[in-house]
Amino acid sequence: MAKSIAGPEIERLIQLLAKLPGLGPRSARRAALHLVKRREQLLGPLAGAMAEANESVRTCSNCGNVDTRDPCTICADPGRDRSTLIVVEDVSDLWALERAKALNAAYHVLGGVLSPLEGIGPEELNIARLVERVAEGGIAEIVIAVNATVEGQTTAHYLMDQLEGFDIKITRLAHGVPVGGELDYLDEGTLSAAMRSRTKF
Amino acid sequence: MAKSIAGPEIERLIQLLAKLPGLGPRSARRAALHLVKRREQLLGPLAGAMAEANESVRTCSNCGNVDTRDPCTICADPGRDRSTLIVVEDVSDLWALERAKALNAAYHVLGGVLSPLEGIGPEELNIARLVERVAEGGIAEIVIAVNATVEGQTTAHYLMDQLEGFDIKITRLAHGVPVGGELDYLDEGTLSAAMRSRTKF
Repeated sequence: MAKSIAGPEIERLIQLLAKLPGLGPRSARRAALHLVKRREQLLGPLAGAMAEANESVRTCSNCGNVDTRDPCTICADPGRDRSTLIVVEDVSDLWALERAKALNAAYHVLGGVLSPLEGIGPEELNIARLVERVAEGGIAEIVIAVNATVEGQTTAHYLMDQLEGFDIKITRLAHGVPVGGELDYLDEGTLSAAMRSRTKF
Repeated sequence: MAKSIAGPEIERLIQLLAKLPGLGPRSARRAALHLVKRREQLLGPLAGAMAEANESVRTCSNCGNVDTRDPCTICADPGRDRSTLIVVEDVSDLWALERAKALNAAYHVLGGVLSPLEGIGPEELNIARLVERVAEGGIAEIVIAVNATVEGQTTAHYLMDQLEGFDIKITRLAHGVPVGGELDYLDEGTLSAAMRSRTKF
């Protein structure tokens, strides 16, 4: 619709912006207008930053993380405890755990979860490399930090099977009441889990 | 924070994305990750579209619209009724009226409203060119389609003064109940205006 009023370049910009998570057609239009009205401060720099990221971003061949170098910043960091490996579904989970400063360990990004319905089997995930890393030795503990969904738990059980022969500790994140959460709004599964894992005050 | 885990290029991308309207720091991070995981389908094309828009976007020297050509698509459109000029505050208002297919007329974009508090006087707005266009002749009606805010109305009155000597009809948008609106949620000013302007059923 805006095609006829603002030139194909702007229309294309709107269409591509609308594919970003959190932006719909309406907010993409607002974002595009915001950009073209701030060419020097924002549109130019953002175009440059995207081109640069597009040039430099790669997947870490060791752990599956996304970074501008390979091995990634975390795999290359000498200050990390490499004897512990945190297995996550996605890079966004890795970022979330890093923001929380949850554990100063190494990671392994699966790139998804097992999902027969969507045709995602073990071969589609970064599992073979995980087994390889464990076989290379030096790993004492694996924290399976997948989401608490059915697919996540299925994947966790599959990983347990794959790692059965190795002498390592396999752990998972604790279930419980979220910090700041109200009991009244929590589901029964979470409440039962929190009760079972209750700790001394 | 993400700086230490994902390289400066990605961090810069996140910072710039966070400046878009509708995206905060959290959603900018999600958008950046979405982009770097879809380099070929999205990041590359979007970088290209932005560079292209940055190259080609300009302000129409006739009406103040933003387009990839000057005069803009609307000013250059032979099918437009140029005897009617719709005066708007911003390009976003022009886009909104075009989406609504409100009137097949020409536009004039002021680029803001008078605001003594923010130091915006008549010289900061695209008003001189408006008077020039009217003086050039051929315009029968001017629709002052500024927002129904105090600044908008002040600007409208200022424009009335500036255009006083010309033999043209000056109109404004009707006040009334929004289509689909519930009376219960409308302010008294709108309801009074809608009642005063009531029409035959």
